[in-house]
Amino acid sequence: MNSTQSGSLSNGEIWRLLILTGICIAILANAFQDDGAPLVASAAFSGIAYAVTFSMIRWLGPVFMKAGLKGRDMAKPRRPEIPETMGAVCAIVYLLAIISFIPFAFYKDIVAATSGGGNRDVVVEVQHVETGRMLHRFPHGKLASYMSGVLSLQCITILGIGDDLLDIRWRHKVLIPAFGAIPMLIVYFVDFGVTHVVVPVPLQPYLGAVVDLGWLYYMYMAAVAIFCPNSINMLAGINGVEVAQSLVIAVLLIANDLLYLAPITPFPHPATDSHLFSLYFLLPFVGVSYALLYHNWYPSKVFVGDTYCYFAGMVFAVVGILGHFSKTLLLLFIPQIFNFVYSTPQLFKLIPCPRHRLPKFNSMTGLLDASVTEWTVPPSPLIAAALELLHRLRLMRITRNDEGQIVESTNLTILNLWLVWMGPMRENRLAFHMVVVQIVCGFIGLFIRHRLALVVFRDDNRAFDFGV
Amino acid sequence: MNSTQSGSLSNGEIWRLLILTGICIAILANAFQDDGAPLVASAAFSGIAYAVTFSMIRWLGPVFMKAGLKGRDMAKPRRPEIPETMGAVCAIVYLLAIISFIPFAFYKDIVAATSGGGNRDVVVEVQHVETGRMLHRFPHGKLASYMSGVLSLQCITILGIGDDLLDIRWRHKVLIPAFGAIPMLIVYFVDFGVTHVVVPVPLQPYLGAVVDLGWLYYMYMAAVAIFCPNSINMLAGINGVEVAQSLVIAVLLIANDLLYLAPITPFPHPATDSHLFSLYFLLPFVGVSYALLYHNWYPSKVFVGDTYCYFAGMVFAVVGILGHFSKTLLLLFIPQIFNFVYSTPQLFKLIPCPRHRLPKFNSMTGLLDASVTEWTVPPSPLIAAALELLHRLRLMRITRNDEGQIVESTNLTILNLWLVWMGPMRENRLAFHMVVVQIVCGFIGLFIRHRLALVVFRDDNRAFDFGV
Repeated sequence: MNSTQSGSLSNGEIWRLLILTGICIAILANAFQDDGAPLVASAAFSGIAYAVTFSMIRWLGPVFMKAGLKGRDMAKPRRPEIPETMGAVCAIVYLLAIISFIPFAFYKDIVAATSGGGNRDVVVEVQHVETGRMLHRFPHGKLASYMSGVLSLQCITILGIGDDLLDIRWRHKVLIPAFGAIPMLIVYFVDFGVTHVVVPVPLQPYLGAVVDLGWLYYMYMAAVAIFCPNSINMLAGINGVEVAQSLVIAVLLIANDLLYLAPITPFPHPATDSHLFSLYFLLPFVGVSYALLYHNWYPSKVFVGDTYCYFAGMVFAVVGILGHFSKTLLLLFIPQIFNFVYSTPQLFKLIPCPRHRLPKFNSMTGLLDASVTEWTVPPSPLIAAALELLHRLRLMRITRNDEGQIVESTNLTILNLWLVWMGPMRENRLAFHMVVVQIVCGFIGLFIRHRLALVVFRDDNRAFDFGV
Repeated sequence: MNSTQSGSLSNGEIWRLLILTGICIAILANAFQDDGAPLVASAAFSGIAYAVTFSMIRWLGPVFMKAGLKGRDMAKPRRPEIPETMGAVCAIVYLLAIISFIPFAFYKDIVAATSGGGNRDVVVEVQHVETGRMLHRFPHGKLASYMSGVLSLQCITILGIGDDLLDIRWRHKVLIPAFGAIPMLIVYFVDFGVTHVVVPVPLQPYLGAVVDLGWLYYMYMAAVAIFCPNSINMLAGINGVEVAQSLVIAVLLIANDLLYLAPITPFPHPATDSHLFSLYFLLPFVGVSYALLYHNWYPSKVFVGDTYCYFAGMVFAVVGILGHFSKTLLLLFIPQIFNFVYSTPQLFKLIPCPRHRLPKFNSMTGLLDASVTEWTVPPSPLIAAALELLHRLRLMRITRNDEGQIVESTNLTILNLWLVWMGPMRENRLAFHMVVVQIVCGFIGLFIRHRLALVVFRDDNRAFDFGV
């Protein structure tokens, strides 16, 4: 605790981080001279990114406090002031890591092509890596696609920092990810321009096997890119929950990617490259997020800021869109989708929406309970009936005064709902429950993806039989 | 003045900006459907970027003030507080503009290749634009290079904002552009990897016509990328001077680019594409910088922050490096190079260096005069002799006490030197003089480039005779 506040690392931490960094650098030096193995290099970058983020968060804590980037943790008895916007540190380390990774993932095909007869080694290397199994380097043509993802992530980071610094209105904030998505969509337009999608089997008699969505496909991609960052930002409010949910989603996506690369999958598989691509973006993300979670988990020593939520959501949007598995991605966002749908009555002002809807800290008990909206004007009969129905379905809790009028209703977020269901609990317990919910929903999502999707699509694009 | 402080545009401004934007959008709509003309589209983006930056600076002024992004103008009698870091607005608008420009500059060659027989229009278009003179769209292969420039600019913007927010030490600040240069150098490595340079004629007997610098070439590119942003940041301190010098450099670079595109130059010319590339980066830069200069020129209504200096310098580094005319670029940085060399005694602590070296405002006269370093401990005999020599050469002004000991010497910046030469003057006059110095030096630089370079290099790569 003391070392955290003074902004320094303990001796034990310094040694652990140095050893980790040393091992990762050795792996990288090896991978670079060797014939490829970009996946190993990506894992090594993830380790270095973890060590750098861990140290930077610690070192920059006092600097951020001094610069006024700080906030009060309202769910603690003493409401301590801690550094804010640490997600920006995460994002910057991540961006430098995935940019530095480029030479490991993409081979120098132009040099190989121009160096001609003299430089036989290079030519041999290129042929060699192309024949390797799944650990091959990408051809140069995919570089533009990779860089468009990086551009989108940089955009969202810049705009996220702006959002954290300035007091931007809610209805403007929602559109920030749309600007972040622009580079990716533009390069998609110039680069692939493929807007055909496979039609579900029940609809094929009407639409044919494949339909060209044209500009609607761009609208869909933009919608995914707007939804992911905002939905992670909405499911925030208690120590650690933003980072933990993002880590769970990232790890499940990695598991899904590895399914396509495992030796049991026939090779070459059409989706191999997409999933390698996804791993290159996700592995360093896990590194920086884990370093952040260490400092952000209960009791938080730093806050992550909107920057992190936007950035994390955009990482998922980038891999989902550029890896062409956005539907799978959305299946891992079940809690976020539920939270969004559940919030809509407040978002559309059918029910009053206070500025903050996070659970309320009871300083007497030290527990969190669901926060409430106060009805200064009683609800109209229609809304009152709807609230009553939700109350009976245990989807909300309402309080009536002596005259039977509704005076309070709980705010419509998944965190408050969980507290309505389970009763008041400590902040770390609530965060842990949310992680479990995210994991369980994620497994359900992956199960739907790989087992039930065959009901509506002709074949799982893994083209691989689980042994059914 | 009132409308500025209230953060709104006057009616006249609204109409002018709307008309400009309307015209530019009409040009863009035409350019997109037409067979290309990316240069016209780039100019239109420049106009839109100007209008957006102009409005955003005005609107965001009060928001920045409220968020604490503000500073005092010390060279004014009342030391008014005005918004800081407005360069970030500039940079973000610029980045969105050059990203949105991508579909205009690069044609969809993959779609053209895959759409095959059915879609004859696209194929025809591609062949057509390739045969056009200089207004053709780039092939897809250059997209990676373009995007690496954008990545570097985004990196430097993020890091510049960090620098403006946090209190970063001078010796750390200097390295910020090095991180910004990483994406460009990495993609250069993967993409071209060409590190051969033409040897000056006098050295050819020893080195041959072309020499491969290898990793030294990357060191050189990194040095250019570190020098340009820092040197612009060093030549700062009075209202408008950072933006005005950047605008002069940009306009001279554009003039140099146009030399290669003018009908008098034989076509196809090997450097045409490089200079088109440069124009695509520079035209929107002029748009956003001009909007900033309007608000930053004496008396400043906003400050630009280190973000702008880094961002502007990196724009020049990007066009110089990716356009392969970094030597020409450096010839346009004569005042900055002089300022850097002249500052070295203070940078290396031979002479004490106060935190700020900007000219000093005399509130009695309303004029600026050269600021001074006080020698609390008298200089050593060697340094005293050197100071005396500089004083006699009129390269510095020293003040002695009654005992003949040096007690004050002027700070070593070009602004202070100019005030030593010309005597105290008003801030706007000093800024105007600096602009003239920059223009005159720039013309000298271009003259050296196109006339005197033939002495050391076999031929001007313009391969075009001025009529000598």
